[in-house]
Amino acid sequence: MTAAAKTPSRPGRRPLRVLGLDPGSRHTGYGLVLREGSRMRALRHGRLSLGDGPLPARLAILADGLRALIEAEQPDVAVLESLFRGVNARSLIVLAQARGVLLATLALAEIEIHEYAPAEVKTAVTGSGRADKRQVERMVRLILGLGDVELSADASDALGVAICFGQRLRVDGLSRAAGVTKRPSRLP
Amino acid sequence: MTAAAKTPSRPGRRPLRVLGLDPGSRHTGYGLVLREGSRMRALRHGRLSLGDGPLPARLAILADGLRALIEAEQPDVAVLESLFRGVNARSLIVLAQARGVLLATLALAEIEIHEYAPAEVKTAVTGSGRADKRQVERMVRLILGLGDVELSADASDALGVAICFGQRLRVDGLSRAAGVTKRPSRLP
Repeated sequence: MTAAAKTPSRPGRRPLRVLGLDPGSRHTGYGLVLREGSRMRALRHGRLSLGDGPLPARLAILADGLRALIEAEQPDVAVLESLFRGVNARSLIVLAQARGVLLATLALAEIEIHEYAPAEVKTAVTGSGRADKRQVERMVRLILGLGDVELSADASDALGVAICFGQRLRVDGLSRAAGVTKRPSRLP
Repeated sequence: MTAAAKTPSRPGRRPLRVLGLDPGSRHTGYGLVLREGSRMRALRHGRLSLGDGPLPARLAILADGLRALIEAEQPDVAVLESLFRGVNARSLIVLAQARGVLLATLALAEIEIHEYAPAEVKTAVTGSGRADKRQVERMVRLILGLGDVELSADASDALGVAICFGQRLRVDGLSRAAGVTKRPSRLP
C-alpha cells in the first residue's frame, strides 16, 4: 500500500476512520467505516449527487462535497478502487477526471490514500474476485451489520473498498509479523 | 462553444483575459493572452511544476497553483484542448485526472471554459491541422510578438489554445453576423 500524503498520527490504538469512495461523474458513493481491532462498523454512508450541469460544474460540486465530508468526519485514510481500463475511452476519461478531483481534494486535506484493484475488493468482501454487485452488497450488509437499511449501489461499493482496506490491513499485519514482504499497491 | 460556468460580465468592450492551459501530471503549461479587438498579446506564460511526489500530492499542487494563478490574473475565460483518445490508457488516465482537477478548480472560480480539438488548435495557429510542435511554437511567437523570449513547450501549447479561442471568437462573430450557425464545442 502506498501512503499518498502523510501517514496519520495514531496515538495508542484509537479506532481508524476509513473513508471508502466510489467515484462517478453523476454520483460519487462514500462509506465511512470505523475499524477497531478486527471489527468494522459503518458510521455513515451515502452518495454525493453532482447534479446534471456541465462536467466542470459537477466536478466543482464533487470537490466541495468531499471537502465538507472530510471536515465533518475527519477520516484517517481514504480508499478507492484503481481505474478499470477495460471500459471505453469516453467513460474512462469521465471517471478519471472525477477521480483526479477526489485525489487532489484528499491530498490537500493530507489524508492518506490507498487503492485496490476491483477484483481485490471483491475477493476481500465476498471471497471471490468475480462476485457480482448483489453479492458484494449482501456481504457488505453482513460484515457491517447493516440489516436492511437503505443502501445505494454507489454507497455499497464505497463501503466495499473500505472493508477491503480493513481486511488487508489485518492480513498485512499478520504477514509482517510472519516476515512476509507485502506487495505495495500503486497509484497510477 | 459551450459555456461551462456563468458567462463573465463584460461591461462595454474591455479586453478579454484568456487563460490557455495545457494539463500534464508533471508540468501544466499556462498562457494568459489579452484579446483586444482582433489583436492578441501575451501577458504571462510559464508552467506549474508539480514536483515528483505521488500523484495525489502533484494534483493538490496543481489545484493550489491554478487557484493562485486565477486569483493573481483574474482571467475571463479558460481554454483547454480536448483529450486526445489515441494515447494509451495509462497516459489517458493520468492526463484526465489532471484535467479533472483543472476543470473543478476553474468551475469553483466561476470561470467560463472552452475546449477545442488538438487539430483545431493547430489549424487556428498555423493554418494546418498537422503542424508539429515547432511550427506551432514559431507561429505562437509570431502572433503574440514574443521574439525569442524563453518559452517552454508546455507554455507554447497553452498560448496556442488561447490564440485558438481568440481567433475562433472572431470567426464565430463574423459567422453570426453572416447568419451562419456555429457548431458548439463539447466538453466530454
